[in-house]
Amino acid sequence: MKAFVTSADVSHGIRLESLPDPRPAPGEALVEVRAVAVNRADLLLAARRPPGSQLGLDVAGTVVEAAEDGTGPPAGTPVAGLAASTSWAQLAAVRTDRLAALPDGVEPAIAAAVPVAGLTALYALQRAGWLLGRSVLVTGASGGVGGFVADLAAAAGATALGWTGTPERGRHLTERGHRIHAGYAAPPDEAVDVVIDSVGGTVFRDAFVRLRAGGVAVVFGNTVRADLVLPPDWGHARAGVRLEHLFLLDEIERRPAARDLATLFGLVADDRLRPHVGLRADWADADSAIEALLERRVTGRVVLGL
Amino acid sequence: MKAFVTSADVSHGIRLESLPDPRPAPGEALVEVRAVAVNRADLLLAARRPPGSQLGLDVAGTVVEAAEDGTGPPAGTPVAGLAASTSWAQLAAVRTDRLAALPDGVEPAIAAAVPVAGLTALYALQRAGWLLGRSVLVTGASGGVGGFVADLAAAAGATALGWTGTPERGRHLTERGHRIHAGYAAPPDEAVDVVIDSVGGTVFRDAFVRLRAGGVAVVFGNTVRADLVLPPDWGHARAGVRLEHLFLLDEIERRPAARDLATLFGLVADDRLRPHVGLRADWADADSAIEALLERRVTGRVVLGL
Repeated sequence: MKAFVTSADVSHGIRLESLPDPRPAPGEALVEVRAVAVNRADLLLAARRPPGSQLGLDVAGTVVEAAEDGTGPPAGTPVAGLAASTSWAQLAAVRTDRLAALPDGVEPAIAAAVPVAGLTALYALQRAGWLLGRSVLVTGASGGVGGFVADLAAAAGATALGWTGTPERGRHLTERGHRIHAGYAAPPDEAVDVVIDSVGGTVFRDAFVRLRAGGVAVVFGNTVRADLVLPPDWGHARAGVRLEHLFLLDEIERRPAARDLATLFGLVADDRLRPHVGLRADWADADSAIEALLERRVTGRVVLGL
Repeated sequence: MKAFVTSADVSHGIRLESLPDPRPAPGEALVEVRAVAVNRADLLLAARRPPGSQLGLDVAGTVVEAAEDGTGPPAGTPVAGLAASTSWAQLAAVRTDRLAALPDGVEPAIAAAVPVAGLTALYALQRAGWLLGRSVLVTGASGGVGGFVADLAAAAGATALGWTGTPERGRHLTERGHRIHAGYAAPPDEAVDVVIDSVGGTVFRDAFVRLRAGGVAVVFGNTVRADLVLPPDWGHARAGVRLEHLFLLDEIERRPAARDLATLFGLVADDRLRPHVGLRADWADADSAIEALLERRVTGRVVLGL
């Protein structure tokens, strides 16, 4: 099969190579890949491995060989899920506890945008707990996860407020009926129950201090790579407040994602969750798609079709 | 009855006055007060109220009139609990859901040291969740709450490490079989599962970064009144980490404390929890006891006998 691998010389990015077909473990299904997504996590993981390593988490395609242990969907099922940094290939062996069947009408090119970003949003909101009637402020809302947070918050009965740099970068949120607050110079002037943050720095601080008593902040990234700084009364001024960190790649080691993936794909089928794909390209153009993501020229998700 | 009230001129502290006996609400027992404790919270609460206001949370004594609604212990029962900033008096009306009977052998002068500090320690550790086999680092361990945290952590199956300024200030911990780390210049050189902090500033930061993946930090105070500052990888480097704030006066508004108080007094009776009373005085000397507390001349709790 053809697969992307990292280059010997990192500055040259990734390249397509011919590799032996993967041999699935007993709990893995063999998937013929139709679409993958590009995540920062893919690149971080790849950078930690030796040159020539495969990459790619998000995967959508069709099962060509069911798992030997009888778990997961049968051959012929359209599926999507999380591969172990091996999805950017024509074939991928995927653990069945990280795979779910796609409902009718959910195309691979949409489904591939979901696993990493959708599970991140889902697990971040789960940390907050009860959502019905609550308000959720999501920072960096133009990023790949922002739209998922807003849609999932709404699906769970909350109202979402997306904080973006400009109104344009929040358009996919307003089109979905979510409110946005544009501009990082001034924070939104309202109290919220939940903050979902991936920006860090002063944006996180300004969001955190909007939390009501009993509020929860969940952080899953730190774009600005700055210290976390909160004022001395961070807790005392908002009794019972809580701050949690979510690291998806750790989280999925601790529990099976299959059922949560099925929940996400079901919401997509019902249009209660709409992945915002900001860039769609052929996988031959992976390099330029990666560049667009790293330079923040894309809002939403980047998907590559095979 | 005689009761302490705040002075018109705050710099003159508090003074004894004759007040009408309290008239208990239906859910309150009338308690003849035998001992009270001095908490920073008493002074903070009093400072927010007009001059001439009563003060005092911790109370131990004997029920002289059971609650009219039939709840709580009958007249004649030795009890201790939390009064609504009215305990520094000969008589106090105390909600029965914030009161518990004292087991044999638990004297009022010991029991009075328990409610505020013991519930703070208990609720802080409850936020951490599972403790059996885990390790708990408690900063500011020479303060009123430190010894409770260490004893309760041990009672729940954890090992406690108390962080104090000097070995002398941690003696009450080592005497109870807990380990201490003395000196705030250098942090303890070991990973922990739980941090209970009331110091803030660099001490909190240095404690927090010792947390293992999945660790929990619970903050219930901020002695140094500094910003909370954590390094950019605060979460990423310790997956699933959580930070919570506990404000006891808010917490007790949300749930009855009676059963938790009974738990604490039961542990005291069994000597699994030993209140460290650093200063015991007659309530006539309340002013100098307060001074000793504020100037940090006392390790542990300050109790006044009537």
